[in-house]
Amino acid sequence: MAVGKVEFPLMNKVAGICLGTANAGIKQTERDDVLLVEMHPDATCAAVFTQNAFCAAPVLVAREHLKNNPHYLLINSGNANAGTGEQGLLDAQASCEATAVVSATQAVQVLPFSTGVIGERLPINKLIAALPQAWENKKEDNWSQASLAIMTTDTFAKGYSKVVGIAGHAVTITGISKGAGMIQPNMATMLGFIATDAKISQELLQICLSEAVEQSFNRITVDGDTSTNDACVLMASGQSSLPELLPNTSELLDFQQAVQEASMQLAEAIIRDGEGATKLIKIHVQQATDEAEAVQVAKTIAHSPLVKTAFFASDPNWGRILAAVGRSGVPQLAVEKISIYLDDVCIVEQGGCAASYTEAAGQAVMNQEEINVTVILGRGEVTQRVLTCDFSYDYVRINAEYRT
Amino acid sequence: MAVGKVEFPLMNKVAGICLGTANAGIKQTERDDVLLVEMHPDATCAAVFTQNAFCAAPVLVAREHLKNNPHYLLINSGNANAGTGEQGLLDAQASCEATAVVSATQAVQVLPFSTGVIGERLPINKLIAALPQAWENKKEDNWSQASLAIMTTDTFAKGYSKVVGIAGHAVTITGISKGAGMIQPNMATMLGFIATDAKISQELLQICLSEAVEQSFNRITVDGDTSTNDACVLMASGQSSLPELLPNTSELLDFQQAVQEASMQLAEAIIRDGEGATKLIKIHVQQATDEAEAVQVAKTIAHSPLVKTAFFASDPNWGRILAAVGRSGVPQLAVEKISIYLDDVCIVEQGGCAASYTEAAGQAVMNQEEINVTVILGRGEVTQRVLTCDFSYDYVRINAEYRT
Repeated sequence: MAVGKVEFPLMNKVAGICLGTANAGIKQTERDDVLLVEMHPDATCAAVFTQNAFCAAPVLVAREHLKNNPHYLLINSGNANAGTGEQGLLDAQASCEATAVVSATQAVQVLPFSTGVIGERLPINKLIAALPQAWENKKEDNWSQASLAIMTTDTFAKGYSKVVGIAGHAVTITGISKGAGMIQPNMATMLGFIATDAKISQELLQICLSEAVEQSFNRITVDGDTSTNDACVLMASGQSSLPELLPNTSELLDFQQAVQEASMQLAEAIIRDGEGATKLIKIHVQQATDEAEAVQVAKTIAHSPLVKTAFFASDPNWGRILAAVGRSGVPQLAVEKISIYLDDVCIVEQGGCAASYTEAAGQAVMNQEEINVTVILGRGEVTQRVLTCDFSYDYVRINAEYRT
Repeated sequence: MAVGKVEFPLMNKVAGICLGTANAGIKQTERDDVLLVEMHPDATCAAVFTQNAFCAAPVLVAREHLKNNPHYLLINSGNANAGTGEQGLLDAQASCEATAVVSATQAVQVLPFSTGVIGERLPINKLIAALPQAWENKKEDNWSQASLAIMTTDTFAKGYSKVVGIAGHAVTITGISKGAGMIQPNMATMLGFIATDAKISQELLQICLSEAVEQSFNRITVDGDTSTNDACVLMASGQSSLPELLPNTSELLDFQQAVQEASMQLAEAIIRDGEGATKLIKIHVQQATDEAEAVQVAKTIAHSPLVKTAFFASDPNWGRILAAVGRSGVPQLAVEKISIYLDDVCIVEQGGCAASYTEAAGQAVMNQEEINVTVILGRGEVTQRVLTCDFSYDYVRINAEYRT
């Protein structure tokens, strides 16, 4: 069901980052559902978490442990440990303690992550029993196995890997993500784990990750729902020959760009795997006053069920896009300055249907599997991009039948 | 496809308000598609319009003409005259001028309304040719015909009528609405016309209408899309024996309440006719700090495709409601204070699954055709209510196939 052909890339190892998987049988027994990640003692680690006020127990624990220079990640799929109250917190802490035992570290240096069904207690004993197996098989060359172990309803594994040259040194960036849209608080939801061998302080690494996530994972939407478990981690093992990255250097900019590219590719893979998705839609808002305004317009279009069903039907229904822009809540929107394009076909100019527009030209674009919608506001200089997918019968089917 | 059994009520005449319909053949020829409303010379008239920046030509004209003590409404279905640029404005003005000719009034005292397909030119000559017929058959006892003439994709006509006693005088409130949700910028979208024989100044009438709409038409949503043509009109003919309503009187409060009741019933009828709707969902947010916060939480739930597909599937998936509350953006939301009920079944208490909750109890409520969701925030004293419907295969079908 993925949009486009998505091949799992060749995954470069990241020196100092080892991954081990195991089969705990949390929800199924066919494939591994536990991932243990070990970082080099010199590594730094940054993370961002869901903004949802109802965040899951492992998010609460991981957010706290992030302050203690963590060196282990423990991820399970099949159960989100969300909506589980005090017991959920005890279980998340117990999973960290068990990891501390096998790895001879401290529990507060372990970040726990869970993804899967909401509202059921985490089978903590199964998880603990599987830890030695994950510990035993951990190695640097295990990214492919890791990408499979974190999947829930994903229809394909999502990976990214690149070696970039920074100041003449090779720096590797390799990452995995999971999620079939931001759309399943039940199978809660998006996780991303990215590693690099660059050397960088935790503070700078956190800034790099936050900026990259803002332009990538925070710019994708299937239906506007935010999961209780979303998290993204960036680990830097410090094992590259590149000297430590410092603030206000061109090397840091190069690194930031490489991290952002990884985040964007991993985010796009999630949209391509959006539930029921048949089309990938890239919404570009240009000439906005500021970033917030551009994102507001883009997300209003991206969340409109009317726009999304029109894309599903390959219907060049420009009135729906125009109406979404009009209700986006941007103050003093001058409609006569607005132009809208479907790829390079102008559908709206000066706030009305473009004189040059023909239904045939619009239809040709709508028939594509990937479509660019460009909205030019004529208010300023800022451009932002949001990715989404269409809204199909299968979206309703998947989400209506999810628990049956 | 309506949710519940909706019977068209007995419509009481409103002294001083005459309605005439005609068949202009704008999009179809089977039923009347033009409605002309004439108000008594003493009548006052208030109106509210869509907030969409891309509002339709008739909205722009009607908003301007409202300042001139209007005495005629001209409504057509089948064509929205939206996204039609300068020509659309000329056509809307021409329709007012033609009405002025048949009624010997001034064009600036006519309010035009259009509902139907976006982006096609209004067939102004057909509309003008039908005016004499509407003029000829206008009478006070014509509300039922009027309710049919303004329908587009509605599956049933929507009416409300009540005679209330205020200070010992009978006051009639009768109204009609159209709309199958706020969900069709294509068949743009919701219209409401309410009349009363009370005597009230235009200023007070406008306040009454604005307050009533805020609690009714602005508290319903099918999918969050706002049409380019939404409008609601309240006419007061002044022909009742009740003396003129004055500010700060109990009579005005009684009248306000009666207008609000009419608006809420006409709004609820639109949700019952929501495209593809199989369930009516009433979302009550209690103990909020203020109205804005309560509406924000209620609308986040009401717009969540995940929540709506769960209702369609009759799935008591409380995690989705909880996640929607959590991402609603209310600052400093204390999740441990939150309770959520499905009718009288407590599903969430102290931010987690209620101890008393059973799947069977939740399932019993979800199997109903009408469901109350109550969210208690534990932050303040304010309660607000939002109505919505579920999200079905038919929603996707109707909106995907709309133009095919």
